[in-house]
Amino acid sequence: MGFATDTAVAPAEDGPGRWTGTVHEGWDIGGNANGGYLLGIAARAMAAEAGRPDPVTVTAHYLAPGRPGPVTVEAEVVKQGKRFTTVRATLDGPDRRLLAVLGTFGDLAPAAGDGAGAPVRVVDRPPELPPVEDCIALVPGEQGMPPTFANRVDIRMHPDDAGFARGRPSGEMRLRGWFRLPEGEPIDTLALLLATDAYPPTIFNADLPVAWTPTVELTTHVRARPAPGWLRCAFTTRFVTGGFLEEDGVVWDETGTLVAQSRQLALVPRPA
Amino acid sequence: MGFATDTAVAPAEDGPGRWTGTVHEGWDIGGNANGGYLLGIAARAMAAEAGRPDPVTVTAHYLAPGRPGPVTVEAEVVKQGKRFTTVRATLDGPDRRLLAVLGTFGDLAPAAGDGAGAPVRVVDRPPELPPVEDCIALVPGEQGMPPTFANRVDIRMHPDDAGFARGRPSGEMRLRGWFRLPEGEPIDTLALLLATDAYPPTIFNADLPVAWTPTVELTTHVRARPAPGWLRCAFTTRFVTGGFLEEDGVVWDETGTLVAQSRQLALVPRPA
Repeated sequence: MGFATDTAVAPAEDGPGRWTGTVHEGWDIGGNANGGYLLGIAARAMAAEAGRPDPVTVTAHYLAPGRPGPVTVEAEVVKQGKRFTTVRATLDGPDRRLLAVLGTFGDLAPAAGDGAGAPVRVVDRPPELPPVEDCIALVPGEQGMPPTFANRVDIRMHPDDAGFARGRPSGEMRLRGWFRLPEGEPIDTLALLLATDAYPPTIFNADLPVAWTPTVELTTHVRARPAPGWLRCAFTTRFVTGGFLEEDGVVWDETGTLVAQSRQLALVPRPA
Repeated sequence: MGFATDTAVAPAEDGPGRWTGTVHEGWDIGGNANGGYLLGIAARAMAAEAGRPDPVTVTAHYLAPGRPGPVTVEAEVVKQGKRFTTVRATLDGPDRRLLAVLGTFGDLAPAAGDGAGAPVRVVDRPPELPPVEDCIALVPGEQGMPPTFANRVDIRMHPDDAGFARGRPSGEMRLRGWFRLPEGEPIDTLALLLATDAYPPTIFNADLPVAWTPTVELTTHVRARPAPGWLRCAFTTRFVTGGFLEEDGVVWDETGTLVAQSRQLALVPRPA
């Protein structure tokens, strides 16, 4: 149990580029495995196939909901470069294809230093959050999050953004808060993929009759390996149009370093 | 000549899923074909393979610069659904792989109407722009844009954002302006992929010693088919860190409808 353990993959016996893993129990939301968790399995196999540890930019298209059980990743290197390796993959359950993924992997260790010496300019700042103890934990069974997944991640929402769970959406399509893995598990760059898809949907804070927004596509850029500790996260939506919405994420580590940016496209169903 | 003509593809004789096209002269910037143009060739083949006209979300990873000459697209349907078809593809030149692409295609005709009845909320607004005639055209040979590409697109930049061409960057990593195709060519959803990668880099408006920012990855979400006329565009960068920057694009049509959102990850080289 734990993200690293539950996303582990092993080379399959039936050929190169094939990896096996397991969608474990307890990562689901309403029976469907969390999208960031599924992507973690695929991306771990892709990083292994690439021989480079860090996802730099990864895009997943969500094709069908994942259920607990065995999965297979087929990963193919489409280009091996001096600094990056680009890999594409599919994640398949026993009876259907769950994900198609395209990612570029590299080495973001500070010592690798390709970014060292490049200019830096940061216009935005980390979200201002009350101390962790003043924020609102995801309570199993509340906030639209079932008991299971809420035990797999440690999320503390900004109090101003957490009222939706009690029928008082803020009216602003935004969720801010802290994130870490339980039991002191370190957050590596693969776990950042989980962090960018672990919060409740931003639309829960809109006064709109929408209960759920299935992800079509999620892209995460990883900028740096996070320092130990909590992550500061902010997810916002600006455009609910044409039956779609985007959800933009920005994730910072405790030292104030931007570690990830994400955007997903999700479906906005017609009210029933 | 024209975007549709110059991105045309035809089924290859040597097997299903293979398409041939041509990188035409005149779409280059400093000898390398524009990334949105290259993506247009690949996405046109992918849409044909999908049998669905509109890219809903498309991600391209840029592997090598494209030069004029023949190209081949290998496109594979990874999932055919009721509403969407997901396709992955590679775009190969004679001697190297140029792009890897993953996209989900659908039908965004208003009559198709899957989005009809879904709630709408738009927090942001189109960029305020002076009338077209008061904006600054991309002049062939200026603004870092060579004669060729500047003749393939009709870009009129907000005067406040166009000073970089004369050595007066605004200091704000933003470019706003109008976009259309020359000679009255209509802008379809494939041409929107071009629109999201046609402007000069936002970093030209930063006081940073950076000349060029090669694209690693570009994702475009298409929200609607644009109405005839000019597009209003805004491209912004918030984070130049770790040797990378993101560039976020928002594109609206003349009726005030959001038609596309884009984000690219680009490299920020160390100053020479």
